[in-house]
Amino acid sequence: MSEERKFNWVGTRPIRPDGLDKVTGRANFGADLTLPGMLWAKVLRSPHAHAKIRSIDVAPALAIEGVKAVITGADLPDPSSELVANAEGAMGSMSDLARVILARKKVLYDGHAVAAVAATTTTQAEKAVAAIRVDYEVLEPVLDIDSAMAPGAPILHEGLRTRGLDPPSDEPTNVASRTQMGRGDVDKGFEEADVVVEREFTTKMVHQGYIEPHAVVARTGEDGQSVVWCCTQGHFVVRAMCAGVLGMDISEIKVIPSEIGGGFGGKTTVYLEPLAILLSRKTGRPVKLVMTRDEVFRATGPTSGSKMRVKMGATKDGTLTAADATLMMEAGAFPGSPVTTACMCMFAPFNIPATRMEGLDVVVNKPKTAAYRAPGAPMGAFGAESVMDELAEKLGIDVLEFRLKNAIHEGMIAAYGPKFGPIGLVETLEVAKNHPHYKAPLGPNQGRGVASGFWFNVGMQSSANISLNENGTVNVVTGNPDIGGSRASMALMAAEELQIPVDQVKPQVADTDTIGYSDLTGGSRVTYATGMAVIEAARSVVDDLRQRAAALWEVEVDSVKWEDGNAVSEDGEKTLSIGELARSAGRTGGPILGRGAVNAASPGPAFATHICDVEVDKETGKVDVIRYTTIQDAGKAVHPSYVEGQMQGGASQGIGWALNEEYIYDEKGNLENPGFLDYRMPVASDLPMIDTVIVEVPNPGHPYGVRGVGEAPIVPPLAAVANAVSHATGVRMVDLPMSPPHVLEAIDRAG
Amino acid sequence: MSEERKFNWVGTRPIRPDGLDKVTGRANFGADLTLPGMLWAKVLRSPHAHAKIRSIDVAPALAIEGVKAVITGADLPDPSSELVANAEGAMGSMSDLARVILARKKVLYDGHAVAAVAATTTTQAEKAVAAIRVDYEVLEPVLDIDSAMAPGAPILHEGLRTRGLDPPSDEPTNVASRTQMGRGDVDKGFEEADVVVEREFTTKMVHQGYIEPHAVVARTGEDGQSVVWCCTQGHFVVRAMCAGVLGMDISEIKVIPSEIGGGFGGKTTVYLEPLAILLSRKTGRPVKLVMTRDEVFRATGPTSGSKMRVKMGATKDGTLTAADATLMMEAGAFPGSPVTTACMCMFAPFNIPATRMEGLDVVVNKPKTAAYRAPGAPMGAFGAESVMDELAEKLGIDVLEFRLKNAIHEGMIAAYGPKFGPIGLVETLEVAKNHPHYKAPLGPNQGRGVASGFWFNVGMQSSANISLNENGTVNVVTGNPDIGGSRASMALMAAEELQIPVDQVKPQVADTDTIGYSDLTGGSRVTYATGMAVIEAARSVVDDLRQRAAALWEVEVDSVKWEDGNAVSEDGEKTLSIGELARSAGRTGGPILGRGAVNAASPGPAFATHICDVEVDKETGKVDVIRYTTIQDAGKAVHPSYVEGQMQGGASQGIGWALNEEYIYDEKGNLENPGFLDYRMPVASDLPMIDTVIVEVPNPGHPYGVRGVGEAPIVPPLAAVANAVSHATGVRMVDLPMSPPHVLEAIDRAG
Repeated sequence: MSEERKFNWVGTRPIRPDGLDKVTGRANFGADLTLPGMLWAKVLRSPHAHAKIRSIDVAPALAIEGVKAVITGADLPDPSSELVANAEGAMGSMSDLARVILARKKVLYDGHAVAAVAATTTTQAEKAVAAIRVDYEVLEPVLDIDSAMAPGAPILHEGLRTRGLDPPSDEPTNVASRTQMGRGDVDKGFEEADVVVEREFTTKMVHQGYIEPHAVVARTGEDGQSVVWCCTQGHFVVRAMCAGVLGMDISEIKVIPSEIGGGFGGKTTVYLEPLAILLSRKTGRPVKLVMTRDEVFRATGPTSGSKMRVKMGATKDGTLTAADATLMMEAGAFPGSPVTTACMCMFAPFNIPATRMEGLDVVVNKPKTAAYRAPGAPMGAFGAESVMDELAEKLGIDVLEFRLKNAIHEGMIAAYGPKFGPIGLVETLEVAKNHPHYKAPLGPNQGRGVASGFWFNVGMQSSANISLNENGTVNVVTGNPDIGGSRASMALMAAEELQIPVDQVKPQVADTDTIGYSDLTGGSRVTYATGMAVIEAARSVVDDLRQRAAALWEVEVDSVKWEDGNAVSEDGEKTLSIGELARSAGRTGGPILGRGAVNAASPGPAFATHICDVEVDKETGKVDVIRYTTIQDAGKAVHPSYVEGQMQGGASQGIGWALNEEYIYDEKGNLENPGFLDYRMPVASDLPMIDTVIVEVPNPGHPYGVRGVGEAPIVPPLAAVANAVSHATGVRMVDLPMSPPHVLEAIDRAG
Repeated sequence: MSEERKFNWVGTRPIRPDGLDKVTGRANFGADLTLPGMLWAKVLRSPHAHAKIRSIDVAPALAIEGVKAVITGADLPDPSSELVANAEGAMGSMSDLARVILARKKVLYDGHAVAAVAATTTTQAEKAVAAIRVDYEVLEPVLDIDSAMAPGAPILHEGLRTRGLDPPSDEPTNVASRTQMGRGDVDKGFEEADVVVEREFTTKMVHQGYIEPHAVVARTGEDGQSVVWCCTQGHFVVRAMCAGVLGMDISEIKVIPSEIGGGFGGKTTVYLEPLAILLSRKTGRPVKLVMTRDEVFRATGPTSGSKMRVKMGATKDGTLTAADATLMMEAGAFPGSPVTTACMCMFAPFNIPATRMEGLDVVVNKPKTAAYRAPGAPMGAFGAESVMDELAEKLGIDVLEFRLKNAIHEGMIAAYGPKFGPIGLVETLEVAKNHPHYKAPLGPNQGRGVASGFWFNVGMQSSANISLNENGTVNVVTGNPDIGGSRASMALMAAEELQIPVDQVKPQVADTDTIGYSDLTGGSRVTYATGMAVIEAARSVVDDLRQRAAALWEVEVDSVKWEDGNAVSEDGEKTLSIGELARSAGRTGGPILGRGAVNAASPGPAFATHICDVEVDKETGKVDVIRYTTIQDAGKAVHPSYVEGQMQGGASQGIGWALNEEYIYDEKGNLENPGFLDYRMPVASDLPMIDTVIVEVPNPGHPYGVRGVGEAPIVPPLAAVANAVSHATGVRMVDLPMSPPHVLEAIDRAG
């Protein structure tokens, strides 16, 4: 990788192959498959946030016409057994997952699945669900971190003990684990500080808000082989999870990914798929299950509400001396909040000699959280970047100068441990400092906030196959559902290697049985890691093409060059185009195939810096974002439009999180706003055009220098917006969302 | 390939993966896909066998509620342009194909497609089809070879001239081409003969009779990309043909093969697919088209009716001296009968010093013929093997001894040109001679017939990908629709190479965009050629696994053996199973993939010998097959049950062809028996159990010695049954089918 490399296709902006079909609704999403003889299924969900299940009587449901099967938790294998785990880990506990799929003994949140019914029509299935009699013993719910950690709090899981305590404790608890990290002498650091800021912050549980509800069709053959069609971020993970939960072998399940209408981390796990498989196995018929929006909000994984204490100190000249934080996150009903990654990321943009991060994972009677774009990092950054802002204020230093002075760069050790290679934080800060936005004047009741954000990015395993069509066009096949335009970026990288026009490349997403193992579309890994597999596969095709030309010309393969989509002889006299070589493939050894497979280990961390201007209506508390600029290091932007789209999308989601989104529960633990009218996500008219500046500091771990770009843009907005509102109001904003009543309350409280 | 090779899996009989679903109807066939917003289409078909189209008025159809589009021949690109041809050829004329898809200017057979309608419901589509007004000028039809070749016969295609005439003729004609082949001095050969038999034979047009009618769903995206789901023997061929007929680039079309309910050659071309694509492009909606049985009979390609003159001579001691034949075959409405392959195959089982074969391809007002299992060969063999039978009779030599004396074997030149390598004809004859069946006594009105048959087999291009699942199970992906159990045979070959249990191998069939180019499932090529691609892919996986083990052990890869599904160190001390290596793949370089691609050129010819006993009811003319034995050289039977199934299936089809099947046209050229009640195919109760004996003379062109087995078994039955009936009745049977009235007539005629 050298910066001088000239690209022909990488860096251009062709329309994504799936784009038109997706915006017009023609694409086939999870709910769009219908099979002959198909049954419709519905899920019975708990009306209680916390209750024991004394008994379930499914007989009245089975008596309803058209009902073919009813399943409850008793139909799943004993969830105490740990059945299967992805070789690369990170799928969490199968026994917990099984209890999310169908409750056993207890229901732990409003909407928790209790039973599922398959019937000839949806109406019959709905009737049957309503007819199931569940005898609950209602328990007191635990709905936030404070009440979960309070002495004498109701306990969700009698057997739960806090992991990571030294010495271990045998007390029943709702704190699932304690994580600690950091380095240096924090106490000494604070002693050396001239200014110390310490604040407590809270954020609410929020949902990814993907437009497409979860949907699945499963069919099981006479031979016991199940085929699953579903919308997911990773069909190999669906396969492994279904196999784990159902006690099946992964080779008994084939998962075909539909198009996906958004995931943002929320479609990295399973809810309906094991139910559909089980019902199809019981009935011998295909079974379709589609969630309503209400079910999506109540019963799929949002991200955690959080409570944080963050303390940072600096000398008068603006040098950070120490940072200390305690983060507590709501895991939902089962352990597994992103508190550890929040701890990892929160201080990563800073070069601090002494850091200490403590994370507590706390179970509450709310849905089990799932991944949400840069899981945990936005909350951690909200705390750290707010404190940074306040420190700069107290020190009287420009916030960007302050950040630049303490910015992490190549060769430094990150707060969470690793030594960074080439990274682009400083570049994003420099761009921000010189951006017209940062110098623009502000009006009355307006404020400007700045924040940086970090996501470490992941690589993991990806596979790619390439085949040449007989006219020289090229199929590129990978195993990653296309969410953010990855078909386009795979096509661009293949076109770059093959040196052919990108419109001669057809990128495809194949099912679990057709392409090699591929980890999920997430962690900002696909363009980076799957791209590397595609590049490897394309290079193997070029090698094959050069060999075939060499054989036809009766020369050594080393003398054959590959230029502009042609094999060229040493003297430049003879050429054979990819089309000619494809047409003659039959005579030169048969079809031309390429393959690539990677476990990509050097993803290249991503940094972003955001500038946000707001105007606050001090009478209503309403906050309008009036200007917003995102600056991010993409390493190398393969398709700049889709990098910009990620930056804009992440910023928009972060703004929604900062300003309006929250799960609102009543005192019984019932979700009060399970719909887009009441769960207030920003729409286009709520936001200004989000400006983007791509910075390119090549990642040496990728042939073109690519870094993942999907997660980092959601990290700064919580803090950037909060800092802006703080400056506009003169009141430090520490609780999200900053919705009108909350902002008014904060202003009132500050007097 | 050595005969001593020990196989662990090849030669065993696991149940085919697709078997249970297919026999229970759960498999998804061509008509089984439904998409959101899908339209239903119907085809308007000509009621005339021969007519000019003066005009088509589609306005009344378009006025019907729910009708979204109507297309006629005018919607296809100019069919005079030759648009595209498969690199390996053999797709025939695109302009003729376009005129089969939708007639232009003329209709040429009863059932010829004239227009197609897409509407919201089938009822609307049917109404609309009925509302289209076509103004026909009805012409005299040409319904058989004699009338087609008669002076002054109506001419189907004004521009047609006989190819292969020397000197060329510029006369309008219905004879599309003349083929000649053979070698030696035939006249001299007949002079040297002591006995000469010359006979004229006829066979009728017959249909492959697959159970599943043609069906397709096509959808076209906003970006113009069309996706086609259909039942076909070769989705890559469907792609090329649709592109050719519609003037599209192959990369604009993706074809997904459904499961297929029989093809036998009849699903190697397209009828509905271009219509569905065109209608989906016009309407922007998915479109489904399913043929009725009536449409299948009237408008898809059966195989030719034929007329043959066959003459053979031998010396008193039973040595063949010469053979001469003229074959005339009905091509249907456009050129392309299998007369050339009939000429190639008919004398191939014999070592004859002088041969001459002449073939005429004759157009008639019947549906354009398509391939049917060993195209042409059964008719040619009917003539040659009947004459052989009569020669043996006249010479007073046992028919098998006579055949053995003249049998072709390794090193001899075939009548049609090539020199044979190792072949198994003699072995099948020896088995027949020693088979209890051949020695069993016959009762009154019973007769025994023997015939041999030959099919050259083809290789062609195939691709295979293999991927390892994370638990060590294996996916094997090819591009050949599974008709005769090829999933099972691919799994067996992969299991053999990987040395793992066959149930750990999941064979898959992938679409045109996902797997490399693969020629169609036909020509008895899949087990042979696609099998070679799978073996190559599996060997590349074993190499990769050995390399990973070597890296983990820090030894040279050459020192690592692969035994029983394990990498084994040189000293045998260390082993790593495929499962262990798969689980650790992430740490050793990522997913494990293999690929194989071949243009297989040494398919190994197939020979079969059949023995047939019949009993003839001389009062009704009804013939019962009472015992039937098939003996065939499979080279190496990968899955003996499915080899036996091919032998039994081919024999059954041949028996039906011999005894009852025929297209019956009235004098206007309307098909009178377009349904299974009137088109009389044998059912299970019509036939005895068909005995099978597999002979294995390894084909040196395949790593395991495999030969194709699908076609050869349909070659002998016409002659074997006719010879048996001839012996039972004492009347030489020269006209097929030998249905009761025809047999009675022949007996009557002979007095």
